[in-house]
Amino acid sequence: MKNKKIIIVGAGLCGTLLAIRMGQRGFEVHLHEKRPDMRKESVDAGRSINLALSSRGLKALAKAGMEADIRKSCIPMRGRMIHTLEGEQRFSPYSGRADEYINSVSRWGLNVQLLEKADEMENVKLFFNSHCQEVDLEHATATFRNSKTTEIWQDKGAVVIGTDGAGSVVRRSLMGRTTDLLFNYSQNFLRHGYKELTIYPGDGGSHRIEKNALHIWPRGSFMIIALPNLDGSFTVTMFHPFGGDYGFDALTSEEKVKDFFETNFSTLIPHMPHYVEEYFKNPVGSLGTIKCYPWQAYGKALVMGDAAHAIVPFYGQGMNASFEDVRVFDDLMEETGDNWSVLFERFQDMRVDNANAIADLAIDNFHEMQDKVADPTFVKKRQLEMKLEQTFDDYYSKYSLVTFKPDMPYAKAMELGRRQDELLLKMVEGIDVEAIDLNKVMDEISQLHSTPVA
Amino acid sequence: MKNKKIIIVGAGLCGTLLAIRMGQRGFEVHLHEKRPDMRKESVDAGRSINLALSSRGLKALAKAGMEADIRKSCIPMRGRMIHTLEGEQRFSPYSGRADEYINSVSRWGLNVQLLEKADEMENVKLFFNSHCQEVDLEHATATFRNSKTTEIWQDKGAVVIGTDGAGSVVRRSLMGRTTDLLFNYSQNFLRHGYKELTIYPGDGGSHRIEKNALHIWPRGSFMIIALPNLDGSFTVTMFHPFGGDYGFDALTSEEKVKDFFETNFSTLIPHMPHYVEEYFKNPVGSLGTIKCYPWQAYGKALVMGDAAHAIVPFYGQGMNASFEDVRVFDDLMEETGDNWSVLFERFQDMRVDNANAIADLAIDNFHEMQDKVADPTFVKKRQLEMKLEQTFDDYYSKYSLVTFKPDMPYAKAMELGRRQDELLLKMVEGIDVEAIDLNKVMDEISQLHSTPVA
Repeated sequence: MKNKKIIIVGAGLCGTLLAIRMGQRGFEVHLHEKRPDMRKESVDAGRSINLALSSRGLKALAKAGMEADIRKSCIPMRGRMIHTLEGEQRFSPYSGRADEYINSVSRWGLNVQLLEKADEMENVKLFFNSHCQEVDLEHATATFRNSKTTEIWQDKGAVVIGTDGAGSVVRRSLMGRTTDLLFNYSQNFLRHGYKELTIYPGDGGSHRIEKNALHIWPRGSFMIIALPNLDGSFTVTMFHPFGGDYGFDALTSEEKVKDFFETNFSTLIPHMPHYVEEYFKNPVGSLGTIKCYPWQAYGKALVMGDAAHAIVPFYGQGMNASFEDVRVFDDLMEETGDNWSVLFERFQDMRVDNANAIADLAIDNFHEMQDKVADPTFVKKRQLEMKLEQTFDDYYSKYSLVTFKPDMPYAKAMELGRRQDELLLKMVEGIDVEAIDLNKVMDEISQLHSTPVA
Repeated sequence: MKNKKIIIVGAGLCGTLLAIRMGQRGFEVHLHEKRPDMRKESVDAGRSINLALSSRGLKALAKAGMEADIRKSCIPMRGRMIHTLEGEQRFSPYSGRADEYINSVSRWGLNVQLLEKADEMENVKLFFNSHCQEVDLEHATATFRNSKTTEIWQDKGAVVIGTDGAGSVVRRSLMGRTTDLLFNYSQNFLRHGYKELTIYPGDGGSHRIEKNALHIWPRGSFMIIALPNLDGSFTVTMFHPFGGDYGFDALTSEEKVKDFFETNFSTLIPHMPHYVEEYFKNPVGSLGTIKCYPWQAYGKALVMGDAAHAIVPFYGQGMNASFEDVRVFDDLMEETGDNWSVLFERFQDMRVDNANAIADLAIDNFHEMQDKVADPTFVKKRQLEMKLEQTFDDYYSKYSLVTFKPDMPYAKAMELGRRQDELLLKMVEGIDVEAIDLNKVMDEISQLHSTPVA
């Protein structure tokens, strides 16, 4: 069993799902989490309250036998509800097909479901308050500090896998080895941050605005979005510049905040009478992209999930990409077994381009969600896409390729999706959507799909 | 004097020159160096033995009144001496003008000259074995560990300036503040490393190969260069892939190394009879580019030199760019005085694009030095440029703009230089250089210079 012990650092969504799958395969798993057990103590994860779960994430959960259970905690969001400055609401479905939607899910609730599943398994052992300090890469040995007892101890496995998020300690240990590993790394922050607010439930736990939608109040250089929760509330997120006349750094008084909301989000105010208080209570988070390579060292240590590829939230793919890591890792294991060197190398080489692709797509969508949802050409393109989706079973928009086609790698979805977008934008320019011959469009798109990607 | 104490972390080339200039301006300077005093103890800096000093570096040294002294330790290198596989030598001047050349200088010797100058100044205090652990950015307080006494102590100034190189601790303190500072950072390593070897002096301290040249043995995917030293020796540097059939990782036996050198560098062997022994004795270094932004925090802490912008050595500009940082910082101070916030912000905003430009140029030159020095079109372009330089006082090649025009910022030199290169490469294609009308070429180049850079 010497080769069978896996140390996982970080019991967030990715790490816990990985622990479950590795447990199901019969490995001895030690799952370490620096925070207390979130099932027993209130934990401020400092992270978003709810998330969008879609096909890639669901496919990974299905492999662990958990899809059906998790779906019970999901609220389908069938499209974007755009709220204009004038108070108009415009619903834009994510797909012309009824079974293609994304799901709002509670980060806490999902993590708890995963932890409970992991905890049931005899060969998976959970360690809370267990804060990784560093990893001895060559010896697959991680040093932990128990944040309650202050005890320092070492846990040695066949391998150490870091699923410890954007601030990963495991990645930091890789990074310290610049010369051996030629470790490439980048972190890039948007000049926008985010702050969470709340729309509380309506009468009898009802949803005060459309339940089955992801709501967007696009306002050019800033926006607000809202995702529904099961209790009738919505988690509202401001994506907002730090600087400038109305940036976070300038909105320092009640008066300024009120003024700003009354000017830009007046239709939201009736749903959040407490917003000024909440504004000053809640912190501002930053939005960063992390890329790195390699993800593994010596066949002994590996990072995955946000630890390897933290992305901005604008494609709703952060959790899905991390769950997909677990699914792909697990798929590869069918061939490699516990030949860790081969497994780790194949995994990183298969995943890195896809992780970079979804990172770039998420940045693109940041601009699209802010600016383009109101752009007439973009709206026409979306209309044309809707018609294509309703008419042709095999038409997929870029968004659908990324969100609803879990068998297509992100990199390919990006490449194809971008070429499709270019084509469609050209087609709708100066033309009424009704006048477009759908069959002709579909022909051109099929040609595009059969052209090899450069 | 509360506002007048400057803590400088790192007494390498950049930090010591900065200490001198700040000392000359009357500030109280504490200059900390983690290594022992290199004037008294042999210090392995783990860095290149000699360096190319050119106009930008000299301009900064001149401002500190040190140019004349330093020039005495320099060996002019007037061009590249290309050594072909067949043993042919071809000299290619850096410029058609006699006063434009670069200088080989000993890193150690130059650093010692700077340290002696700094040590003479009453208001500059040197601390050796003083290893910075972290910086409290808001309070301009650095924590040091004396590596001989193991004592830990704190030094507080008006500001802390990190000139502590590519592995900067001061930068790490900035980096820890991702959310406050939105600290963007990247490190990228080439898949090539380097190893230093030596050509020892000839009879009576003579130079065994041409003294006044930078020697290159270009071999496609790898190369060797050599720079002259005052004692008649040359420092030889292999720039060589880690991987592949003949990479560093594969050259593991005496036989393989001998085989490799006999095949690729046979004309070098007579000058280095000891090369196999040296090959196995000397370490392999990595070649990385570091970019980051911001360079300052709260008007209290700043990084400059390699700590802010480590580059690969292929343009011979690493030290020159760092010295230029000091010169620009000092120039800006004429306007800002010790208004540190304004000074630091202006400095970073003025320098970051230029630092990124020389980083990119150095990567470009990595490819140019390996491949293109033997390319016929490239050789013809170089011939045309030589004629232009000899004919027109105001013609400058990209290389000359970067190397010999210290008043033109790197970013502008890159932009103009690249456009010139494109133009000239187009002009020489399929045409004999003798047949080209130089006046016509110069007209087009003048036009290019008067077109605003996009």
